[in-house]
Amino acid sequence: MQLRYKTPEVITSVEGVKCSGVRIKGGGLGLVVCDGKAAGVFTTNKFKAAPVIVTENHLKKGYIKGIIVNSGNANAYTGEQGIKNAIKMAELLAEKIGCSREEIVVSSTGVIGVQLDIKWIGSLFNSAYPQINSSRENSWKFAKSITTTDSFTKQWGVKVGDCVVAGVAKGAGMIAPNMATMLAYVFTDAKIDCEGIIKKVVKKTFNSITVDGDTSTNDSFILVSTEKKECDEKKIEEAIMHVCSVLAEMIAADGEGASKLMRVFVRGAKNDVEAEKAARAVASSILVKTALFGCDANWGRVIAALGYSDVEINENLDLDIVGCKWDAEDAFRGGKGFKVELIKNGKDTGKRSLASKLMRENEVVEYHIDLKVGNGKSCIVGCDLNHNYVKINSEYTT
Amino acid sequence: MQLRYKTPEVITSVEGVKCSGVRIKGGGLGLVVCDGKAAGVFTTNKFKAAPVIVTENHLKKGYIKGIIVNSGNANAYTGEQGIKNAIKMAELLAEKIGCSREEIVVSSTGVIGVQLDIKWIGSLFNSAYPQINSSRENSWKFAKSITTTDSFTKQWGVKVGDCVVAGVAKGAGMIAPNMATMLAYVFTDAKIDCEGIIKKVVKKTFNSITVDGDTSTNDSFILVSTEKKECDEKKIEEAIMHVCSVLAEMIAADGEGASKLMRVFVRGAKNDVEAEKAARAVASSILVKTALFGCDANWGRVIAALGYSDVEINENLDLDIVGCKWDAEDAFRGGKGFKVELIKNGKDTGKRSLASKLMRENEVVEYHIDLKVGNGKSCIVGCDLNHNYVKINSEYTT
Repeated sequence: MQLRYKTPEVITSVEGVKCSGVRIKGGGLGLVVCDGKAAGVFTTNKFKAAPVIVTENHLKKGYIKGIIVNSGNANAYTGEQGIKNAIKMAELLAEKIGCSREEIVVSSTGVIGVQLDIKWIGSLFNSAYPQINSSRENSWKFAKSITTTDSFTKQWGVKVGDCVVAGVAKGAGMIAPNMATMLAYVFTDAKIDCEGIIKKVVKKTFNSITVDGDTSTNDSFILVSTEKKECDEKKIEEAIMHVCSVLAEMIAADGEGASKLMRVFVRGAKNDVEAEKAARAVASSILVKTALFGCDANWGRVIAALGYSDVEINENLDLDIVGCKWDAEDAFRGGKGFKVELIKNGKDTGKRSLASKLMRENEVVEYHIDLKVGNGKSCIVGCDLNHNYVKINSEYTT
Repeated sequence: MQLRYKTPEVITSVEGVKCSGVRIKGGGLGLVVCDGKAAGVFTTNKFKAAPVIVTENHLKKGYIKGIIVNSGNANAYTGEQGIKNAIKMAELLAEKIGCSREEIVVSSTGVIGVQLDIKWIGSLFNSAYPQINSSRENSWKFAKSITTTDSFTKQWGVKVGDCVVAGVAKGAGMIAPNMATMLAYVFTDAKIDCEGIIKKVVKKTFNSITVDGDTSTNDSFILVSTEKKECDEKKIEEAIMHVCSVLAEMIAADGEGASKLMRVFVRGAKNDVEAEKAARAVASSILVKTALFGCDANWGRVIAALGYSDVEINENLDLDIVGCKWDAEDAFRGGKGFKVELIKNGKDTGKRSLASKLMRENEVVEYHIDLKVGNGKSCIVGCDLNHNYVKINSEYTT
C-alpha cells in the first residue's frame, strides 16, 4: 500500500546534513555527511549482521561524521570477512571526509549469507560521493537508494520553531516486534540528549509495528543531532516521536504487499505491558490479518487472539472498528473516522455487516478494544496479509 | 495438501465403539457411543468455548458413555446461553443412551460468536442417531461430519496384538502452539491409564504442530479406553503416540491451503525446551513458510528465525534439507529421503540450488538443524504459507 504524502521537511533541511544516493539494478548506496552527536538502537536478533556489530562499536563514542548504507546485500551471517567488509565500507567514507572510521555509521540491507562485493560498493561510492549536497532532491535520492522491496520511499520531517527534525526509513517486510529489517535515520539540528530520547521513542514507534513477526539481522535506528541550535527539549522530543511514528506507520503500510494499515488500540488492560501484549496478539494474528484483507469484521478472530494473548481480560469487553483515511498527523494516535461498535459489554451488537462495509471503504482500519480490567493502554500498528505478501516472499530471495 | 493414505484400522475397529455422522451444507453432527475411561486436554485460550467448559466438567469423573460433536458453529463467546446449549447437546445423547449427561463429551467447531441453533442440532441428531453402528463406513462418516475447512478426512489406527488404537481428527487452520481449532478423539480397547498417557502424548504430537500461530477457543483432544483387553502398556503408549503423530501431521498437512508439509528437527540445543523454541520459531516464521512455498532453500530466513528465537546457538551450526514423500510411518520421525547439506560448520556449502530442486520435487520438506550447544532435541511440524491460505481465510468466516 503506497501512502501518498508530501513531507514538510526532509533530512537536508536539517542544518549540517548533506547526502546523496545512487540506485542501480540489484541495489544501491546512500551517503550522509554530518557532524554531530548520535545514538543507535539495533536488532535483538542473535545473528547480528556485520555492519550492526561494527556500528554498535563505532557509536560508543557518541558522535559521528557520516553514514554509509548499501541495499541489495545484508552482509549478514558472513563471518570475519563480513566484518572486514563493513569496516572497509566505513573506511571508504572516512577517507574522503578525513575522519577516523570509528566516526562512520555503516548499514546494509538485502540478501543474507552472501559476501559483499566490495568492488561493487566502491564503484557505487565513486558515483555517489561527488554528488553529496544539501538539496531537497538528494534527500529523496538517499531515501530511494536504501530501499529493497519497499514500494515507496519513506521520509518525514517537521519544523519546531527554528529547528528541524527529519528522517528517512526503509522497510517493507520482516517487520516485527523489536525492529526487523528496517533502517531509520533521524536528524535534528537542535541540541538534544540523543541517548536518552532514542530509547523512549523507539519503544512507542519502530518497536510497536508488526508486519510478519520476523525479526531481522540488520535493523538499525540512528538518531543524530548536529547541535546547531537551541530549542525546548520537550517540544523536540515530541517532534522526534511524531517523525518516528510517521516513518513507522509508513513501514507498516508498506508491509510487503499490504492493502490496508491496521491500528490496534487496547485500553483498560491491567497495565501497559499487558495492553501491548494484547494489541500485539491481535495485530500479529494472521487470521485477523487475512480477515482484514477480506474486509470481514470477523470479531471472533479478534476475541480468539485476545484469548491466547495471556493477559487479564474481562468477558464484558468492548470492541469498536474505526475506518479512516491515512493522515500523518494521526500516526499512532487514531484517525478521525466513522466508528462502529462491534461488541458492547461482551455482547454482539449485530453491526458486523456495517463494520465490514467500513473496512471496504477505508485504507486505515482501527480496532479499539477496552479490556475493562485496569488502566493500561497501548497501540500497535500493522497491516493486512494478502496474496501480494505471499507472492513477494515466495519469489524474492532475502 | 491432501494426504493419500489407507488406514489399517478405524475407530469402529476398537471393541465397544460405535458411531455415526451426518453432514449437510453448513455443518454436520457426529456421534460416538462407547463405555469407558476417558481423559481430555483442552485449549489454553482464555475464551474457552461453552462445550469445552461443559466437557472439562463432565470429564472430572473420568469415564464417558458417548460423544456428540457438531461442525458449523463453534458455540464460542456465547455466554450463558452457550453453556445451556452445550448442556442440551449432551442431554440429547444422554437421553437416548440412558445415562447421565455428565457421561457425555460435547464438542463444537465453526463460527465464533453466534448462538447455536439447537433445533438444527436436534434435527441432525434425529437423522444421525438411528444410524449408529460399528461399521468401518460409519467411522468415515463420523470423521467427515466434524470437518469444517478440512480438505480431507483424518483417521488413523493400528493393531497392537489383539488390541486396537484408532483415532479421528479435525483441523485445518488456527492450528498453533497448544492445540488450536482442532478436535481429536482417540480410542483403544486396551486397559490404559488415560490421564497419565494423554499428557505425554499431546506435548509431542498435537502441541507440536503449527499452522498459523493462532490458538482457538474450541480445541479438544479426548482419549478413551473401553478397557476390553489387556495389553503391554508400553506398546499401547507407543501406538497412541504413533496414531496421534499421524493425526497431527494430517492436520498440519491440511494447514489451510498448504502445498507442503514441513518438519523441523532441532538437535544439539541446550535442552529440549530450547530445542522446541528454536524449532517452533523456524516452523512458524511466515518468511520461512513462504520460501517453502516458493521452493527456495533460502537459509538466511532460517538463520534469522533461529536468531530471534531467544535460545543459545553456536554460529558453527549445521543445516540440512531433506525431501521425501509422506508416509504415516515417518510422522514426527523424519523421512527416508535425499539430503542436502546447506550449512556445514556455519559455512554456506553452495548447494542452495540443489536444495531448491529437492524442495520442488517433494511434498515433505525437512529442516535438520544442529545447534551444537548441548543435547536438547525437538521436532515441530508445520506447512508452507501460500495464496490458498490467504484466499480461504479472507473469504471464510470463522
